[in-house]
Amino acid sequence: MNRNEISDGFRALQLHICSELEALDGNSTFNEDAWERHEGGGGYTRTLMNGKVLEKAGVAFSAVHGPITEAMKNQLGHEGASFFATGVSIVLHPKHPRHPIMHMNVRYFELEDQTFWFGGGIDLTPHFVNFTKAQEFHLSLKRVCDDFHSDFYRKFKEWADKYFYLPHRGESRGVGGIFFDQLDESCGLKKDKLFAFCQELGRLFPKVYADQLKGGHLQAPTKGELNWQALRRGRYVEFNLLHDRGTKFGIYSGGRTESILMSMPPVANWEYNFEPNANSEEQKTLSFLRDFHDYC
Amino acid sequence: MNRNEISDGFRALQLHICSELEALDGNSTFNEDAWERHEGGGGYTRTLMNGKVLEKAGVAFSAVHGPITEAMKNQLGHEGASFFATGVSIVLHPKHPRHPIMHMNVRYFELEDQTFWFGGGIDLTPHFVNFTKAQEFHLSLKRVCDDFHSDFYRKFKEWADKYFYLPHRGESRGVGGIFFDQLDESCGLKKDKLFAFCQELGRLFPKVYADQLKGGHLQAPTKGELNWQALRRGRYVEFNLLHDRGTKFGIYSGGRTESILMSMPPVANWEYNFEPNANSEEQKTLSFLRDFHDYC
Repeated sequence: MNRNEISDGFRALQLHICSELEALDGNSTFNEDAWERHEGGGGYTRTLMNGKVLEKAGVAFSAVHGPITEAMKNQLGHEGASFFATGVSIVLHPKHPRHPIMHMNVRYFELEDQTFWFGGGIDLTPHFVNFTKAQEFHLSLKRVCDDFHSDFYRKFKEWADKYFYLPHRGESRGVGGIFFDQLDESCGLKKDKLFAFCQELGRLFPKVYADQLKGGHLQAPTKGELNWQALRRGRYVEFNLLHDRGTKFGIYSGGRTESILMSMPPVANWEYNFEPNANSEEQKTLSFLRDFHDYC
Repeated sequence: MNRNEISDGFRALQLHICSELEALDGNSTFNEDAWERHEGGGGYTRTLMNGKVLEKAGVAFSAVHGPITEAMKNQLGHEGASFFATGVSIVLHPKHPRHPIMHMNVRYFELEDQTFWFGGGIDLTPHFVNFTKAQEFHLSLKRVCDDFHSDFYRKFKEWADKYFYLPHRGESRGVGGIFFDQLDESCGLKKDKLFAFCQELGRLFPKVYADQLKGGHLQAPTKGELNWQALRRGRYVEFNLLHDRGTKFGIYSGGRTESILMSMPPVANWEYNFEPNANSEEQKTLSFLRDFHDYC
């Protein structure tokens, strides 16, 4: 299993996910931008705008290589002269406030001495929390995790709880999911199995998103719902620019800005000291995000 | 000149600026939130929303003290057990895209061994650059600087050029201004003069903003102008969350989130790979921001 097989697999995964999301949206299709990186490699950034369901979706693939910079050393905690990295990352910003934001990232990293690891995560950020839907989401993740390793779900769920958290708000970004990094053969699985795990997560992504959209008939959004969505999108911006490791690493190490910031919502609002009404659904979501939860 | 005289002076400055901005807006007034900091001190955060001219304005005063944390040590590059800090910071987000965003901050910092310094800055971020207006702005700053020290303007203007810059965009945030930090008596001015310099900058702020609003009759904004304003506000968010030292320091050291993030625009947009039309005013502004400029 060499680096080219892995990056080819991730590229195929990107195209598969895009075609599933196009079918789900039923209206808009992805545009593709090919780009090259000065130091080596490049990527394909695919975006869908103003769909019926998806207001802004980004599904990015990249495979890059080159010398390791100081900024990278600090963040990786690894020494080395050169690296290879490939992965797929996705953020979906739906149009309707009753639909959730969803994110995924799977990636592979290799140093010139053949040291390698995988990383990734999937997490769900509803504007309005629905506990049953959150449980379904976690159960789907758990099933895929369990197919590979009995420790994965518990460990990666806890990691996500810590990672997708805004300390300056005392809030989780959403209902969590799974997160893992520097996953290598020391966990007991061989490289091809670890790659298969990442691919399975990728294939799960559009299915899980479709599941999240199922259920009760959707009314046209109210002004209040749209306002709350815009404020929650503001929190999403805060997480990505202040805390998200991938975003910060990309930006500070000179990555392609437009591809990194495709995760930004189309619109975000900030309102000084906004307090939802007592017992409103907005208030319930906020209270929910201030605690940790188990889902399965 | 002790710390209380300085913080009293800054509090008075905050109130003065607010009353000037209320007169300028002619419609809305500031609300005040008093808050206390668990480790010592507190502040008054004043915000004005949905004015005739100002869509969102924040003018914050704080005077805080307590033990120095690890996060602070790293950012300050100073050892010490406890600190005192007081200052005023302002961000104005105007309603009309043809009016500029303007920011100011003046602050005083003291360690328990009486080491002290002042810091601050004023910078102007037009959504549409107007070179003559930028010159007027710089000339006003230069006049105040020159009254105190012949080196200040040149040195602090260059510092602002470096500081108010988005490396990941290759763009200046706006037309610059002045920025200074760790300014102490080694510059040749005594403490009371340095404080007077900060106060003069503060009193200049509302005058300079009023000057920026003068000139030609303002038409109702077009959709295109409003869209561009929202995208430029997105850049403002990026600067504040990715690069602004005050914001990052505040957030990572456990400051009061709502006071720190009052600098956020009410609304911001992101559009993947947005390119203004060739020769449009938007394109001219973008080109302008990609170069350094001298104004006086």
